Amino acid sequence: MPNPTAAVLIIGDEILTGRTREGNGHYLAGELAKAGIDLRELRVVGDDHATIVAAVRALSAAYHHLFTSGGIGPTHDDITADAVAEAFGASIGVREDARSLLAAYYAARGVEFNAARLRMARIPAGARLIENPVSAAPGFSIGNCHVMAGVPNIFQAMVASVLPQLVGGAPLVTQSLRVMRPEAALAEAFGALAAEWPDVAMGSYPFVQEGAFGTNLVVRGTDPARVAAAMAALRRLIPEGE
Amino acid sequence: MPNPTAAVLIIGDEILTGRTREGNGHYLAGELAKAGIDLRELRVVGDDHATIVAAVRALSAAYHHLFTSGGIGPTHDDITADAVAEAFGASIGVREDARSLLAAYYAARGVEFNAARLRMARIPAGARLIENPVSAAPGFSIGNCHVMAGVPNIFQAMVASVLPQLVGGAPLVTQSLRVMRPEAALAEAFGALAAEWPDVAMGSYPFVQEGAFGTNLVVRGTDPARVAAAMAALRRLIPEGE
Repeated sequence: MPNPTAAVLIIGDEILTGRTREGNGHYLAGELAKAGIDLRELRVVGDDHATIVAAVRALSAAYHHLFTSGGIGPTHDDITADAVAEAFGASIGVREDARSLLAAYYAARGVEFNAARLRMARIPAGARLIENPVSAAPGFSIGNCHVMAGVPNIFQAMVASVLPQLVGGAPLVTQSLRVMRPEAALAEAFGALAAEWPDVAMGSYPFVQEGAFGTNLVVRGTDPARVAAAMAALRRLIPEGE
Repeated sequence: MPNPTAAVLIIGDEILTGRTREGNGHYLAGELAKAGIDLRELRVVGDDHATIVAAVRALSAAYHHLFTSGGIGPTHDDITADAVAEAFGASIGVREDARSLLAAYYAARGVEFNAARLRMARIPAGARLIENPVSAAPGFSIGNCHVMAGVPNIFQAMVASVLPQLVGGAPLVTQSLRVMRPEAALAEAFGALAAEWPDVAMGSYPFVQEGAFGTNLVVRGTDPARVAAAMAALRRLIPEGE
């Protein structure tokens, strides 16, 4: 059975204006590869309600899972929960389970539970909460969409909460061969090998080291035996690789 | 007149499998902000012909400009040029202008001009070449789509070639105020201010420093006077900000 598929939707003007370099998508890509969920698309959009609604609808329809990052904090530019609710046709309001989690957390720390913080208890009807062990304010899953915070350590904690609950597939196995030759010198042999191993993905990634051209040849697949056999064939073809 | 809009399409399995952290989109986001072109969407897709064709069609139709990164090298997994040609209904083959650029470059260096390298002279009919001062193999612009290499230093050189040829708008001006208070403590005042300045974008970005919660309040817009005035109002509201 093929692995389930996924998309990641990163929400935030700070990425598109160049202020912040996106990192949550990269982190999740690695976790999904280990979990056997094929990440097919990563999309970044700004803090615009209609744009988020359209992206959530398109991506949740196209893939088995959609993971979102960002826009669930306490400020006016945190509009993800409302947009996701609309995308799934769900009502949204302060939910008692989320409110009581936050109330207990702030009470224990002597922090005022103000109106801004209460915004973080707005959860679409029917959604399941995603635990936030860092700062209590939960994410949520609705349908096949998993809504998580953008702050990297909270995002990572939420991924750790939600991923084990999903049915994954065979983990992606990656092996690579580093060759100190330009990729164009390897392309013909590598391309012919790739054509012989259609079930194993082969990628070529050039680099420059101290002025010399080198290439990482990468072999990926979900069947460890096939990946190992393909890599053995590649090593026979290019014995100088490391 | 509002600024022109743009999307970036990053092409490569290495991003989606978590092997490589995307950086070209972040670089271009900063350059577009300076050029007065509003980046509205960044999308990452894998090395799949139909997926690339569909993404190029959707994004080039939705925005004034589309910039792509990756997949124009010499190996079998470099399929961007063919996919972009199909998206624009153009034929593609080795083009003499691109071939002669490469021939001169390799001849000067005593490098064999082999079949893999000749692949990099495949350019859609009607496209304009984008100069590559690093390693000669050109990018190209067809319609409103600008196709560039994924290797970061080559990508950046191609951006420097193509951006000055585009008509931009007013550069994005960003000012920020760093406050050592949690964002939920600032949210009400900041949200009220944002509502008073609808033409200026205001974003709130929490951080943790040595266990203490802080917030960067960011004000963005294309009218420097309005951004400065909004920032002055913000400083009056939150005088302890730096």
